[in-house]
This record gives sequence, structure tokens and C-alpha cells, in this order.
Amino acid sequence: MPNRTITVPKGFIAAGLHCGVKQSGKPDLALLYCPGGAKAAAVFTTNAIQAAPVTLCREHAQNNPVYAVVINSGNANACTGKKGLAAAKVMCGKVGKELQIDAEKVLVASTGIIGHQLPITKITAGITAAAESLSNSQTAGQNFAKAIMTTDTRAKQAAEIIDIAGKTITLAATAKGAGMIGPNMATTICVVTTDVAISKPLLNKAFKNAIGVSLNRLTVDGHQSTNDTAILLASGLAENKTIKKQDAAYRRFAAALTNVCTDLAKQMVLDAEGATRMFKVVVKGAAKKEDALKAARAVADYDLVKCAVHGADPNWGRIVAAVGSCGVTLDCAMLCVKIGDIFVFRNGKPTNFDAKQVSRIIAKKEHTITVNLNAGKYQDFCYGCDLSREYVHINADYHT
Amino acid sequence: MPNRTITVPKGFIAAGLHCGVKQSGKPDLALLYCPGGAKAAAVFTTNAIQAAPVTLCREHAQNNPVYAVVINSGNANACTGKKGLAAAKVMCGKVGKELQIDAEKVLVASTGIIGHQLPITKITAGITAAAESLSNSQTAGQNFAKAIMTTDTRAKQAAEIIDIAGKTITLAATAKGAGMIGPNMATTICVVTTDVAISKPLLNKAFKNAIGVSLNRLTVDGHQSTNDTAILLASGLAENKTIKKQDAAYRRFAAALTNVCTDLAKQMVLDAEGATRMFKVVVKGAAKKEDALKAARAVADYDLVKCAVHGADPNWGRIVAAVGSCGVTLDCAMLCVKIGDIFVFRNGKPTNFDAKQVSRIIAKKEHTITVNLNAGKYQDFCYGCDLSREYVHINADYHT
Repeated sequence: MPNRTITVPKGFIAAGLHCGVKQSGKPDLALLYCPGGAKAAAVFTTNAIQAAPVTLCREHAQNNPVYAVVINSGNANACTGKKGLAAAKVMCGKVGKELQIDAEKVLVASTGIIGHQLPITKITAGITAAAESLSNSQTAGQNFAKAIMTTDTRAKQAAEIIDIAGKTITLAATAKGAGMIGPNMATTICVVTTDVAISKPLLNKAFKNAIGVSLNRLTVDGHQSTNDTAILLASGLAENKTIKKQDAAYRRFAAALTNVCTDLAKQMVLDAEGATRMFKVVVKGAAKKEDALKAARAVADYDLVKCAVHGADPNWGRIVAAVGSCGVTLDCAMLCVKIGDIFVFRNGKPTNFDAKQVSRIIAKKEHTITVNLNAGKYQDFCYGCDLSREYVHINADYHT
Repeated sequence: MPNRTITVPKGFIAAGLHCGVKQSGKPDLALLYCPGGAKAAAVFTTNAIQAAPVTLCREHAQNNPVYAVVINSGNANACTGKKGLAAAKVMCGKVGKELQIDAEKVLVASTGIIGHQLPITKITAGITAAAESLSNSQTAGQNFAKAIMTTDTRAKQAAEIIDIAGKTITLAATAKGAGMIGPNMATTICVVTTDVAISKPLLNKAFKNAIGVSLNRLTVDGHQSTNDTAILLASGLAENKTIKKQDAAYRRFAAALTNVCTDLAKQMVLDAEGATRMFKVVVKGAAKKEDALKAARAVADYDLVKCAVHGADPNWGRIVAAVGSCGVTLDCAMLCVKIGDIFVFRNGKPTNFDAKQVSRIIAKKEHTITVNLNAGKYQDFCYGCDLSREYVHINADYHT
């Protein structure tokens, strides 16, 4: 199995273990350490209700350099008031003490159930154990990826290697996220490492753009959580000439970053709660930029479309109803819909398509629905997944 | 069984039968006739994609008086182009011919599958048979109610009798609607009859207001169809002094109209595809009027809340996440949530509530979730239903 763990880029060591937050005995504490220090970029949930670690991490991510990231799963430390904020600080403080670094230079995230205070004694003991087991091995990276999982059925990892002026630059990323994944946010917990040398403003810019077209174009149930956090650390150890302007080197790095984030986004949507397949909705010909995205999200979020995809049903009527009711500029007589390469609806009317052929396209692991509004020049897209009985089972029977 | 059919108010006769649109042999053609003529009010879908009968009915509803309403189920006559519009005109024309009235004074609606041309020969033959069987009997009214059903499991009817200055005024209503029910629209097909004497402007006003707080406050899957139509006919035969201003008589009639529409709305949400229970979301203390409705709809539409209701799970975290991510003015430290009469979240933190007790409240046929934003003085509400495996089954396995 190729090594795509976040310990692949130069300068990072990691650990993941079970400290006792989860009753299942599964890994629930993840630690990442960059002994030489790293430039950091971060994107957070836009939910008005933000968990304590989000509040703290937002502050700490301003610092340069940062040295470590600590994450627990099993408990979101959200809606926990001042005590919750204090607990997030204790997590950073304990990492600082173990690694001999400033607590303010430690980033923190939590994911799991909302409204319960963290079992902080278990977590601080876990931090001590994690600090002792930090390593750049593939196993250590895997353990980190596993320790951030909640209802995910598998760890999600992606990596990319590029060459910039003869220097090898490596990027690696891991993310968790299964339900409560919506657009307009950094979506769940995501950690990216790279050894590129780059200025902090350009690192921020590249990360924001990459998240914008990957995790922010992903919808499982249309909502964002209280804890969504995406963190990118750049160690600068690749020895490339530091990227300081938006030149070819920047573009190459930015493209690679988008690739790893998109790879993760697809893994996330395919591992969404109960999901059996994914689809990409591309909306073309929109009169306004916002219309294109609004229509794409309306289709990807529409339960009846999601059910039709689950049943491999070429139900263009639901796609058309979703587009029609989302409030975008539209003339029905100009509207066209393709599933894969097959027109199912053209200029306001269904075509005489082969339903079995289109059903086979939908039944694949991934297919594309293309909607042409024929009302302008703008285009955008969104990823979605099917809605299954299993989603209901998971979310009706998972009790607080 | 009390008679709540639309033939109860004076001046209406109806019929419902199977003409062959539905392959199941179930009733699929409904006809309502008001020989003395009626004032009409109507509300339609705001979906940009509108079915042919919606286009035609919108025109015809301007006429005064109108005499009849013809509705077929099993085929929506939507996305059917000019041929579809011609078919809707044929339906009105045929009714006009059979009943010796102007085709322009016939209202029309269709509901069912999208994108197929109507089997118009079957429908015109059905209109002839329906015209012959028109009656004011309870059976005739029941047949009308059954003939507009699609995936509904039962006919929905409501009636109200009021007294205005010694005169008995009767209102009766029927509606269909199971999936694809969203707010911002007249929701599905709804027909209301009354014998009140009232001016057309006040009839319009009362109907718009009644729909606004009933069918427009209802969400099953957040989307509106291409065919949603609500029609109100007033025969004026109750012999009350014609209501011409917003006086006590108007208010009494308007309240009764709101009652029958709300009764139908609740029947619809309880018969939503796969629904086992309903809930009302009340949002108080909003900084803006729009915020209150936006937050109520966000909670009622959120799949994770709907799944939690299905599982009778007091999952306040999902309610809070929905409110937090919908974009309303909000301070988490002021936010309160009640399920029934029990606070589950108060001033930004979960309370120490009895989970079993709250679970029993949710497990009832109907319960109320109250969210207090404590940010202002505005209040609004929305009705929703749970999300079940059965919803997925119905909508994944019902093929186009």
C-alpha cells in the first residue's frame, strides 16, 4: 500500500492512540509535531455556534511558526461554555509542556458528540503517551488518520509529489467526515502537511482556494457542524526557493494542493453515512456566478434526487424540480439536463432516452449530472451522494 | 363518519372516478361543479418550472364567476410543451361542453408523473362519465378526494361550520400531497369550497393568508413541485350579507378558513411519504421576521433532525447546529431550546434533562420544538415530519 500519510512530507512526526474518550476502545487522540516549526493556514466552520477548540485554534493559527496539532475524536467540546474553552487550553498547554513549545503555537480540534465536557484527565494522559510515540513512520501516520475518525468507516488520506525547479515537494492530507457535511465551510476535520517553502499569505491563499473547490463543494446533508476545521502546515524543508509571488511555482503547488483536497473530498462523500455512490452536479450557462453554485447545491442537496441516485433511477423530473425551485434565472424552454453524456431533458422537454442505459450510468460509483440553464456564461459544481435507508438507520438510531 | 366532503357547502356537486391515467385502476379524475357559479381564489407554485395546467388555471382563475374544477392524477402534464398546454385546454373545453359553460370558466389541475403527455382521449371520456355522475352525496365528495391522490395513503378532508349573523356558513376542503412538499408555495393540490357570500378581493385575501400559515408552513422535503395549486370556490348561497370589508364577519370566516387549511396541512404532513410522526418548530425572539421563519424551516428541513425525531432521540445538538448554520442573528450564549415543555438547551448549554422523558414526548404523533434566539421580538413556525427508511424506499424504488 502506498504511503500517503501526513508524515511523508519532510519535517513531520505523528502519533494516534486510544486515550479513553471513545468507549469503543478505538483511537481517539491524534498528535502532529513539526520540530522545526511550520507556517500554518486554517479554515473554519461558518456555523454561528462554534466549538471551543474552533475559537482557540482560530487565534493560535495566526501565530508563525506553529509547532503542533492536537485533535481528539469522540467528543466535540461544543456547547460546553467557559469550561470547554478552558479544556481546549489545557490540551494545548499539555502539548506545549510535553514538547517544550509555547501553548499558543499548538493548534487544536475536537470532533464527536456535542454538549459534553471533555474527559480532560484521560486526554492529558493520552497526550503524554502520544508525545512519547511520535514517529515519521507510515504506521504513525495511519494511527493519526484513524484517531480523528468518528462515524467514518475508513481512514481518508491523499498525497501528491511535485517537482519545482528540481526540488521535490510533497503534500499529504487526512480528513474525517461522514455526516453533517455541508458547503460554505471547511467541512469536518482536515489536516494537510507539506514541506514546501512558501510565504504565509500565499499559503493562506492557496489553501482557501483549494478548500473552496473541494471540501466546500461537497454536500452530504447540507449542514455544517460546530467543529469544522481544516489545517495546513508547511515545514519549508523541501529546499525550494521560497514561493513569494503567484508565479509558475505557486501555481504548481496550488494545483497539487487542490488535487489532494479534491481527492479527500471524494473519499469523504463516498464514505458518507449510508452512501453507496456519489455524483457531481455541474451547472452551466448561469446568468450569475451565484446562480450556478446555488443550482448545483440545490440538486445535490435534494433528498428526492439523492433517493433517485440510490435507486439508479434516471428521474430527470426531480432534477428539473430542484433547479426550478431554487430561485435562479431560468427559462424552462431553454433548460437541458444530461446524465453522464446522455441528454435526458433538452430545451424544456424530456428526450427519448434509453432508461436502462442511463440507469447503468447512475449505478456506477460516480457519475455527473450536467444542467445547462442556457441563461448566461457562468459555471459551477458540487459533489453529492445518494440517500439510503442506512443513512436513516445511522442517524435515527445513534442516540445522544 | 362525519361528512367533511367538498359537497357539504351549498351549491356544489362533485364526482371522482377511474378513467385510465393510472394503471392501478384507482380513481384518477375529479370534477367539481357549481351550477350557480362561484367566486374563485387560487394560489400556485412559485417553481420556475410550471406545469401546463398551472399556466392555464392561473388565467382562468381571474374570471368571475367560475363554474367548475377538473383535476386528473397520475400524470402532472408538466414539461410537456405546447402539446401539454393544448391538452389542458382540451380538458377545460370538454368540461365546458359537458356542463354547457365557457371553457375559460373551468379551473384545471394535474398531479403525478412529470414529462409525459396526458392520455387525453381517456381523460375526455372520463370527463363525460364524471359529468353524468355529479352529485352532492358524501360518496361523490369522497370519490373526488380519492381521485386527486397520488402517493397519499388516505384521502385528506376537513370541514368547518360557523355562524355569521344567524346564517350558517360551511367550509370544506380536500388536498393531496405526500412527497415534494415545500414551503413558499400553495403546496400540492388543494380544493376548498364554501357557501359564504363575500367579495372577490376579500376572498383572495383570506385565502392567501390562510395558505400562508398552513400549507406554506409545511415542509416534507423542502422542495415545491411544478404543479402546486390551491383553489377556493365560494358559491355565495349561505345567504349571509355579502362580506365586503374586514369586519367581524370577515374575521370569523378567515379564521374558519385558516382552520380547515391547517387541518389539511397536518393531515398532509402526517401522511408524508414514510412519515410516522410530525413536529412543529416554533422560533421565538428573532431579530428579524425573516430570521424566525428561516430558522424554523432550517430545523424542520434538516435531515439529521428528521432522523432524530424518527428515532425519538432528544438530539438538541442537531437542532442547535441547524439554527447555527442557517444564517440568522444569534448569540450562542443566549440560545434556548425546548422539546415539548422541557428545556434541553438553555443559554448556550445543554440542561440536565431526563432523556427518557423527552424521548417519550418526541415519540408522540405530534410535538413542538421551541427555539428561543433571545435576539429580538419576532416569532414564526413551520411543520415538519420525520425521515424514515420508508421515505427512502418509496423514493428510491418509484421509477420514472
